[in-house]
Amino acid sequence: MGMTKILVINPNTNPKNTAVIAKAIEPYKPDGVEVDTVSPDKGPVGLESYYHNYLASVNVHNRIVQAEKEGYDGIVIACYGDPGIEGAKELVDIPVVGITEASYALARMLSTKFLVVVSAATAVPRQIRYIKSLGIPDFQYDVRPIGLTVLGVMSDRMSAKDLIANNCEIALKETGSELIVMGCSGFSGLRADLEKQLNIPIIDPVVAGVQVCNTLIQMGLAQSKVSTYKTPPVFDIK
Amino acid sequence: MGMTKILVINPNTNPKNTAVIAKAIEPYKPDGVEVDTVSPDKGPVGLESYYHNYLASVNVHNRIVQAEKEGYDGIVIACYGDPGIEGAKELVDIPVVGITEASYALARMLSTKFLVVVSAATAVPRQIRYIKSLGIPDFQYDVRPIGLTVLGVMSDRMSAKDLIANNCEIALKETGSELIVMGCSGFSGLRADLEKQLNIPIIDPVVAGVQVCNTLIQMGLAQSKVSTYKTPPVFDIK
Amino acid sequence: MGMTKILVINPNTNPKNTAVIAKAIEPYKPDGVEVDTVSPDKGPVGLESYYHNYLASVNVHNRIVQAEKEGYDGIVIACYGDPGIEGAKELVDIPVVGITEASYALARMLSTKFLVVVSAATAVPRQIRYIKSLGIPDFQYDVRPIGLTVLGVMSDRMSAKDLIANNCEIALKETGSELIVMGCSGFSGLRADLEKQLNIPIIDPVVAGVQVCNTLIQMGLAQSKVSTYKTPPVFDIK
Amino acid sequence: MGMTKILVINPNTNPKNTAVIAKAIEPYKPDGVEVDTVSPDKGPVGLESYYHNYLASVNVHNRIVQAEKEGYDGIVIACYGDPGIEGAKELVDIPVVGITEASYALARMLSTKFLVVVSAATAVPRQIRYIKSLGIPDFQYDVRPIGLTVLGVMSDRMSAKDLIANNCEIALKETGSELIVMGCSGFSGLRADLEKQLNIPIIDPVVAGVQVCNTLIQMGLAQSKVSTYKTPPVFDIK
Amino acid sequence: MGMTKILVINPNTNPKNTAVIAKAIEPYKPDGVEVDTVSPDKGPVGLESYYHNYLASVNVHNRIVQAEKEGYDGIVIACYGDPGIEGAKELVDIPVVGITEASYALARMLSTKFLVVVSAATAVPRQIRYIKSLGIPDFQYDVRPIGLTVLGVMSDRMSAKDLIANNCEIALKETGSELIVMGCSGFSGLRADLEKQLNIPIIDPVVAGVQVCNTLIQMGLAQSKVSTYKTPPVFDIK
Amino acid sequence: MGMTKILVINPNTNPKNTAVIAKAIEPYKPDGVEVDTVSPDKGPVGLESYYHNYLASVNVHNRIVQAEKEGYDGIVIACYGDPGIEGAKELVDIPVVGITEASYALARMLSTKFLVVVSAATAVPRQIRYIKSLGIPDFQYDVRPIGLTVLGVMSDRMSAKDLIANNCEIALKETGSELIVMGCSGFSGLRADLEKQLNIPIIDPVVAGVQVCNTLIQMGLAQSKVSTYKTPPVFDIK
Repeated sequence: MGMTKILVINPNTNPKNTAVIAKAIEPYKPDGVEVDTVSPDKGPVGLESYYHNYLASVNVHNRIVQAEKEGYDGIVIACYGDPGIEGAKELVDIPVVGITEASYALARMLSTKFLVVVSAATAVPRQIRYIKSLGIPDFQYDVRPIGLTVLGVMSDRMSAKDLIANNCEIALKETGSELIVMGCSGFSGLRADLEKQLNIPIIDPVVAGVQVCNTLIQMGLAQSKVSTYKTPPVFDIK
Repeated sequence: MGMTKILVINPNTNPKNTAVIAKAIEPYKPDGVEVDTVSPDKGPVGLESYYHNYLASVNVHNRIVQAEKEGYDGIVIACYGDPGIEGAKELVDIPVVGITEASYALARMLSTKFLVVVSAATAVPRQIRYIKSLGIPDFQYDVRPIGLTVLGVMSDRMSAKDLIANNCEIALKETGSELIVMGCSGFSGLRADLEKQLNIPIIDPVVAGVQVCNTLIQMGLAQSKVSTYKTPPVFDIK
Repeated sequence: MGMTKILVINPNTNPKNTAVIAKAIEPYKPDGVEVDTVSPDKGPVGLESYYHNYLASVNVHNRIVQAEKEGYDGIVIACYGDPGIEGAKELVDIPVVGITEASYALARMLSTKFLVVVSAATAVPRQIRYIKSLGIPDFQYDVRPIGLTVLGVMSDRMSAKDLIANNCEIALKETGSELIVMGCSGFSGLRADLEKQLNIPIIDPVVAGVQVCNTLIQMGLAQSKVSTYKTPPVFDIK
Repeated sequence: MGMTKILVINPNTNPKNTAVIAKAIEPYKPDGVEVDTVSPDKGPVGLESYYHNYLASVNVHNRIVQAEKEGYDGIVIACYGDPGIEGAKELVDIPVVGITEASYALARMLSTKFLVVVSAATAVPRQIRYIKSLGIPDFQYDVRPIGLTVLGVMSDRMSAKDLIANNCEIALKETGSELIVMGCSGFSGLRADLEKQLNIPIIDPVVAGVQVCNTLIQMGLAQSKVSTYKTPPVFDIK
Repeated sequence: MGMTKILVINPNTNPKNTAVIAKAIEPYKPDGVEVDTVSPDKGPVGLESYYHNYLASVNVHNRIVQAEKEGYDGIVIACYGDPGIEGAKELVDIPVVGITEASYALARMLSTKFLVVVSAATAVPRQIRYIKSLGIPDFQYDVRPIGLTVLGVMSDRMSAKDLIANNCEIALKETGSELIVMGCSGFSGLRADLEKQLNIPIIDPVVAGVQVCNTLIQMGLAQSKVSTYKTPPVFDIK
Repeated sequence: MGMTKILVINPNTNPKNTAVIAKAIEPYKPDGVEVDTVSPDKGPVGLESYYHNYLASVNVHNRIVQAEKEGYDGIVIACYGDPGIEGAKELVDIPVVGITEASYALARMLSTKFLVVVSAATAVPRQIRYIKSLGIPDFQYDVRPIGLTVLGVMSDRMSAKDLIANNCEIALKETGSELIVMGCSGFSGLRADLEKQLNIPIIDPVVAGVQVCNTLIQMGLAQSKVSTYKTPPVFDIK
C-alpha cells in the first residue's frame, strides 16, 4: 500500500491556530506518514462554547466525509474537547480520533492523577463534563484554567506560556498531579519549554491525536460500526 | 404579566412527528400557559444518529434565539436524547429544558429503578452515554429497544404500541424496574393505553418537558449563566 | 375535578418555622392550587440529628395518611434532608415530594455544579449521605455550613442571611458552583435578597417542593407502587 | 473491668424471631462476653417496609439509651437493613453495630462479589438503596429474593431453607458470586446446613453483628462523635 | 480445640519495626488467643515502593504456607497497603487479613469520612490506588502525608508523633474527617497519645488486623475459595 | 539516533507462549522499530493466579532493569492482567506498557462497550478487579470466560478459537458489546480469523502493547517519576 495519510482538522477557521497545530505536530510526525492540517472553509473563527462546537461540527463532518473519499487513512479532530467527535466516528470507516480522548488514554497510563490546564475559567465545566462522559473517575484528574480566552492565547502565546507555568506550579502542589495535559490547541508547541521549566511530563494533545490515530491505522482498527458509530441512515434533509 | 408562553421545538422536520407531540401535550397543558409546538424550517426529517443530532441542533439553536425575541418564556427541546441542549442553554436567558433530562428528574423521585424504552437497538448506546453524562448511576435505570426505527414508529404507531407493551412486560420482570420512560418522541400519546395494559407509572417525556419548563418559569429560574451556560462570545463566522 | 390541594408538612413543631415556610411559598403558589402548610401535633420543636428525624417522621407519617383521606392531591415534606420520605411514599397513593430531592432535580438541569448551604457544620455529613443515597455524583455538588444551628437561624434570620451571603461568596469562588440551594427550611424567603446580592440563581427548596409536587399532580403521576413504595402490609403493632 | 456485655436488639416484637436470633448467636458467642437478646416493648411484629422501620426505630432508640445506662458495652441492631442505625449511633457513646453493615464489612474482605439473599421481592430495592448508601460499588454484590415474606419465613423455616438453597444455586452461577450473606434475621441459624449444601462461605448477619461489635469494644472504639453521630441537642418535644 | 493461634507477618525485615508491631498488639490481644509476630527471613528492610512490595510478597507467601502447616488459625499481613494480599489469600484455607482492609472495614462503620495519615508524600498515590481497588468511594476518605519516609519514622518515633498530630489537626479541619487511620505500621503504638491530643477516634491498623482476623476465625470464616482466591494450580517453576 | 528498540517480556517461562506472542506481533511491527520478545530465565511456566503473578513479577522486574541498561527504548509486559506493572514502571525511566492497559485505552475510543474474553472462569474476578483499579466504569465493559486454562489454550489453539467464537457470539448479543479484547496472550494471532467470523473489531493485546509503547517512545513520553512511579529508594535486602 502507499504512504499512510492522516488529515488533522482544526475545527475553528483561524489560520493562525491551524499553523500552530501543524508546527507542533511536525517534530512528532510518525515515520512514513503524511500529515495534512486543515480547517473547514466555513464556521466560527474561535470555539469557546457548546454553541460554537455545534456550528463547527457540521462543517467538520462534511470535511471528514470528503477526506475519506480523498483517500486519507485516518482523521484527527484538533480542538480541545473533541467537538463533533461521535458524529464524525459515525460518518466514515477510517479511524477518527479526538485529541482530548487520545491524550487522556495516554495520560492514565503514565500517572495516577493528571492535570488539565485550560484557557478560560468557563472552559472548566465543559471539560469536566466531557471527562465524565468518557468515564474517567474523579481521583484521576484535575482541571485548572489560566484565565485567558482562546483568542487571547493565540494573540500572545508567550504570556500564555508564563500563565501556564505559574498556574501549573501552584496546581501541581495543591492536587498531587503527576503529568500535565495542555487543554487547548492554542497551547500546542509550548511543551518543550514548559517541560523544562516544570520538570514533569507534558502531553501536547495534537501530537497525541496524530500518534494514536496512526497506531489505530497500523493495527487495522477503527471505531466499531456495530452500534454506537453505525453509519447513519440517509434521511431527507430540508 | 401576560400569559406564559412556552415553545416546544421538535428538532426533526417531520410534520407528522410534530403533530404527535402537540397532541400528546394537549391534555397536560398547564393552566394559563400557551404552548406552541413547531419544528425548524431546515434539517433532517428524522434523527437516528449523532450526525443528525448535530445537523438538527444548528437549526434548533437559531429557532431558540428567535423564540426569545418573540417573547416566549421557556423552551422545550422535544427529541429523546436532548440534541443540542447545552448549546441551547447558552444562547438564551429563558429556561431551556430537554424532554429527557426532565423525565429522568421526575422518574428518579418516583422509583428506585426506571426503564427507558427506545426505538432501534442502535439508540441504546446513545441513550446510555447521555444518561451517564447526566451522572445517573447504573442501579437507577435500564434501557431496552423495541427494534423499530423512529420512522418505523411514526408510520405504524399501533404496532409500536404492541412492541412497547411486549418488550416492557419482559424487561420489567428481568430488571425490577418500577416505572417506564417512553424514550422516543414518536411514542408520545401512547401513555394512557400502555399504563392501563402494564399497570405501572409511565412518563411521556414531552409532557414532562413542558411541565418542568413551566415549573422553572413559575419559580423565576433558568439555567445559570455563571459558567457552563454563559452566553457565548461573538466570533466571526466564515 | 375541583381545585388541586397540596399539603405542606413542616416536620418540626416550631410554629415560627411553619410560618416562614408558608410565607415563602405564597408568591410562588401555582395558579389554581390551594396550598396548606402545617406541622404535626407532636414531635420535636427542631430537627438537628437523625434521632430527631426518626421521632418526627412517625408523626409526619400519621399526618400524611390523614391528608390523603382529607382529599389532598399531593404532599410536600418541608424539612431539609427529607426526613421520613421513603416511608411517606409507601403510605399513600398521592404523590409525596421532599423539598431536597425536588431542589436537586431542578438544580442539576440548571448547572454543572450546585452549592448547598446548610446551617450547622454537623449537618454537612447528613446532607452528603443523603445526596449520595440519591445517586448524585461528586462533581455535581458541594456543601458548606454557615455555622448556626437551625434554632439560631430561626431566632435571627437577618444574621443568617449575612452569614449565607458571606459564606457563599467564598464557596462559589473556591468550588466553581453555579447555583445555590438553600439547605435549611429556616432560610426560606431569603432568596430574593440573596439572589440580588450574589448574582446567581438560588433555589428555595420549599418552593421547589410545592412546584414539583404540583407538576406530578398535573401529570397524573405518583411514586410507583410496584416495589420500593408498595403499600406496607398491615402488622400487629404492640 | 467486669465481663463485657452486648445487647442485641431485634427491632420487631415477634418473640419467635427474637428466639431464632438468640439461638443463632449462641454457638458464636465470643469468650468472656455476655450477650442478651431482646426486642422493644412496643412496635410492629414484623418489618417489611420503610414505614415499619421508622415505627420500630423510635422504640429501638429508647431501648438503646436505656441499655447504655444499664451498663452494656455495645449494641447490635438485629434486623436486615439496619433500621434506625444512624440515630442509634448518635444517642450513645458505646459502639452500635448494624448486622448488615457488619456483614458487608466482612464479606468484602472474603470475596470479590457477594450475594445477598432476601425474603420478599419488595425487599430488593430497599436493600440495594442501603447498600448504595454505604458506598459499596455495583461489581461487589448482587441481591436475590426467595419470594417469601418475613412472616412466611418465620412460620416455615424449612421451606425457607429449601428456597434459599434453590435460589442461591441459580444465582451463584448467574452472578459469579463467591459468598452468601443471609439477608433476613429470620434466616439466622440456617447457615450450617446451607453451607454444607452449597459449598460456599455464608455469613449469618446476627453473628457478624455480635462479633464485630465485640471487636470494637475490645479495641476501645465506637462511632465518632465529631460530626455525623454527635449527640443530638436536647429539644422540646411536643 | 486448642488455643487459637494468629501469625502476624511484618513483610519488611526490619526487626525494630517487627518489635513495634508486636508491642502495639500486646494490649489488644484477644482473650485466649496466641499472637506471634514475625518477619520473613529474606527481603527488603523497608517497603517504600511497589517494587519492594513485590520483592517482599514472595517471601511473605512462603511464610504463610508454612504457617498453615504449623497450625496457625489465621494470618495478618502487617504492612500498610497490604502487599501480596490477594496471592496470600489464594495460598491457604485459613483466613488472611490485611491490616489496611481491616482498618477501612471498621472505619467506615464509625464515621462518614476517615483520614488516612501516611509517611512520605509518594505513599499517597499508592494508598489512593489501593483504596479505589477496594471500591471505597471518594467521599468516605482523605489521605495526608507527614513527610517522613518509613525509615525516618522508625528512627525517630517521637518526631513522627508530633508530625502526625500537627498534620492531622490541619487536615481534620480542612476535610471534615471524623476518624483517623494510622497508615503506616511504624506509627503503631502511638494511638493512645494521639487520641488524647486530637480528641478523635484513631484506628491502629495492626490491632484492627489481629482483631478482625480473630473475628473471622471465631465465625468459622475465611476467604472464599470459589473463584478469586481459589488455590493456584501447580506449575513447573524454572 | 539509532533504531528504536522495544523489548516484549512474556512473564511466564513457556517458550511456546513466547513464540505465539512474537509471531502475533510480527505483522504489526512498527516501521523502523526492532522488537525482541523474551521471557525471564526463572519463574512459573504459566500464570493462573495472583500468586503466580507475584512470583513472575520479581523476575520480570530484574529483566526490565537489565533491558534499560542494554539500550532498549521501551518495555511491553505481555501477559493479560499486566502482572508487576506498577513496580516495573518505578524501576526504569523508559516507558513500560502493559498489554491490558494499552488494549483498554484503545478499546474505549472505538466503542461504548467492549467485551473481554478470557480463558478460565477463575480469571474473571482477577480481570474485573484490574479493570476497576484502572477506573473503567461498569457500563464500558463485560468479561466472559471460554472455560479453558491458559495451558489448555496453548495446547490446542484451534479449539480455543472455536470456543472464543462461540462464546463471543452469545456474549455480544447479551451484552451489546461492540468490540472484543482477547484477554489472554495465548489467544494472540487468532485475531484475523475471528474478526472475519464475528464481523466485529478485535484487539490483540500484544499488538496493542507494542504499538502504544512505540507511540510513547515517539512522543518522548514515559511514566511520570514525580510520585507513583518514582524510582524506589535503595534498601538493604536480606
